Amino acid sequence: MAVVKACKILITGANRGLGLEIVKQLTENSFPKQHIFATCRDPDGPKSEALRELVKKHPSAITIIRLDADDPSSVKESAKKVGSLLGNNGLNLLVNNAGIVANGTIQTSSVEDMKNTFNTNVIGPLLIIREYLPYLQMAAKASGIPGMSSNKAAVINISTVAGSMTRMPSIYNQFPTLPYGVSKAGFNMLTVLAAEEFKADEILCMALHPGWVKTELGGDEATLEPKESVEGMLRVIGSLTEKQHGGFMDYSGETVTW
Amino acid sequence: MAVVKACKILITGANRGLGLEIVKQLTENSFPKQHIFATCRDPDGPKSEALRELVKKHPSAITIIRLDADDPSSVKESAKKVGSLLGNNGLNLLVNNAGIVANGTIQTSSVEDMKNTFNTNVIGPLLIIREYLPYLQMAAKASGIPGMSSNKAAVINISTVAGSMTRMPSIYNQFPTLPYGVSKAGFNMLTVLAAEEFKADEILCMALHPGWVKTELGGDEATLEPKESVEGMLRVIGSLTEKQHGGFMDYSGETVTW
Ligand SMILES: NC(=O)c1ccc[n+]([C@@H]2O[C@H](COP(=O)([O-])OP(=O)(O)OC[C@H]3O[C@@H](n4cnc5c(N)ncnc54)[C@H](OP(=O)(O)O)[C@@H]3O)[C@@H](O)[C@H]2O)c1
Ligand SMILES: NC(=O)c1ccc[n+]([C@@H]2O[C@H](COP(=O)([O-])OP(=O)(O)OC[C@H]3O[C@@H](n4cnc5c(N)ncnc54)[C@H](OP(=O)(O)O)[C@@H]3O)[C@@H](O)[C@H]2O)c1
Repeated sequence: MAVVKACKILITGANRGLGLEIVKQLTENSFPKQHIFATCRDPDGPKSEALRELVKKHPSAITIIRLDADDPSSVKESAKKVGSLLGNNGLNLLVNNAGIVANGTIQTSSVEDMKNTFNTNVIGPLLIIREYLPYLQMAAKASGIPGMSSNKAAVINISTVAGSMTRMPSIYNQFPTLPYGVSKAGFNMLTVLAAEEFKADEILCMALHPGWVKTELGGDEATLEPKESVEGMLRVIGSLTEKQHGGFMDYSGETVTW
Repeated sequence: MAVVKACKILITGANRGLGLEIVKQLTENSFPKQHIFATCRDPDGPKSEALRELVKKHPSAITIIRLDADDPSSVKESAKKVGSLLGNNGLNLLVNNAGIVANGTIQTSSVEDMKNTFNTNVIGPLLIIREYLPYLQMAAKASGIPGMSSNKAAVINISTVAGSMTRMPSIYNQFPTLPYGVSKAGFNMLTVLAAEEFKADEILCMALHPGWVKTELGGDEATLEPKESVEGMLRVIGSLTEKQHGGFMDYSGETVTW
């Protein structure tokens, strides 16, 4: 089975939901030299308690870093901090997982929700990718292996079928989340263009849909537990090659059409 | 040949470029009872001189209306004004043409450009569609004809292949316009979701790519003159049926993949 063997990994929105579950599973299957930068916007707040508890159990495997995707200066500071902790082998895997949802239709979507979802789900990841790019480039160079893989250097953008023009219409009645869908379509374009730019550096970049998962965002009626979704996503991430570069897949390894 | 026979037509960004050319050609081929609401953000300014000249020649066929896509209150006011001028048969055709471009890559795109393109190219059209929806619904009801067509009630969103995940990568090297591409991908999602919502009302909605056209936005090296692009687009708009509802086409009638 494909597993994630990346040494240095950074995850955004790592304090709860899918982000926390990713940190958990990576820590359980931890490889020698693996280290996780678990980022969240309020490391000391009540919403990060579960993450802090996890770190207590695995103090040498996880470092909590403050990163608010909505705040460019916090993104910059986090990269400086992580950069100072990374060795010369750079950052192998960046998982852009932090995200927010907002409900609305043509009639009801507020301008504020349109702006907020776009800020967190698109501008945030853009700045995060930009600030961490030097460390990803470092990792790609240091690896010495040709081709692309998530163990070498990769950006995984946690997207959703709600950002797919071909898939969203059929779920829109059940999930009238126009601001979210619009932002994630923009996020998918960001993924595609980052992939285009990163070809020469051999940094893999792709969009990954976690399935419909029981988290605060997914709600109680979701069909998957975080455990199953993240097991699937880590399997997919571990198996990526240049063939999936610039692509869109789900947690089960199926291709998602744009 | 398919022609646009819609009676009441509204176009945004009608003072120059493709918008102005659309008004021109519609006026030349004008049908009885056809009336065009040519909207722009500065009706009295120097950039609207050509439009004002056109109105002088066809004073009964065109009304200039102030509409700034970036300003929600201006959108609202324009709809009130147009509403008071429309008869009981509503608005048949809304062309969301106003748009801005911004250059940038992952490394260079500014937060400001990301926000501005999203405001003008996505939030603007969302509010415009919302405010004019009652008049489009009025037109759909008044027509008495089943099915969908641009002569009955339609929203045409002027998009671009730069908003297509499948097409943008191959032109991105030549046109590194990340903020624009991201915003137009979001605009495409808006189109798809509006189409989903408007099914019951039989209001047609689709995205249309004008080709690469010599305007301020397209630049001098573009391959098409506005005349040719708009002739093609009007042919496509005039031929639309429910088959193209929620779809993406170019000025020549070819389907564009998302
Ligand atoms: N669950 C699903 O069914 C589903 C389906 C498709 C896609 N997804 C995607 O999966 C990703 C994770 O979702 P989830 O289900 O785990 O959601 P969740 O349980 O609501 O968790 C969201 C995470 O994102 C963080 N976050 C939000 N805004 C942030 C910001 N400005 N800066 C830093 N962190 C921020 C939250 O931190 P705080 O605790 O500080 O709020 C939290 O850690 C999202 O991108 C979502 O779009 C989820
Ligand atoms: N030309 C091409 O090659 C090409 C290719 C693909 C798609 N497109 C699309 O075609 C559409 C028209 O482009 P174009 O080539 O005609 O561009 P253009 O010559 O630059 O004209 C843009 C028009 O949009 C208006 N506009 C911009 N921001 C506005 C706002 N906030 N409120 C109201 N109006 C605003 C401008 O008005 P002001 O005079 O006030 O600035 C102008 O009338 C755009 O949506 C563009 O994305 C063009």
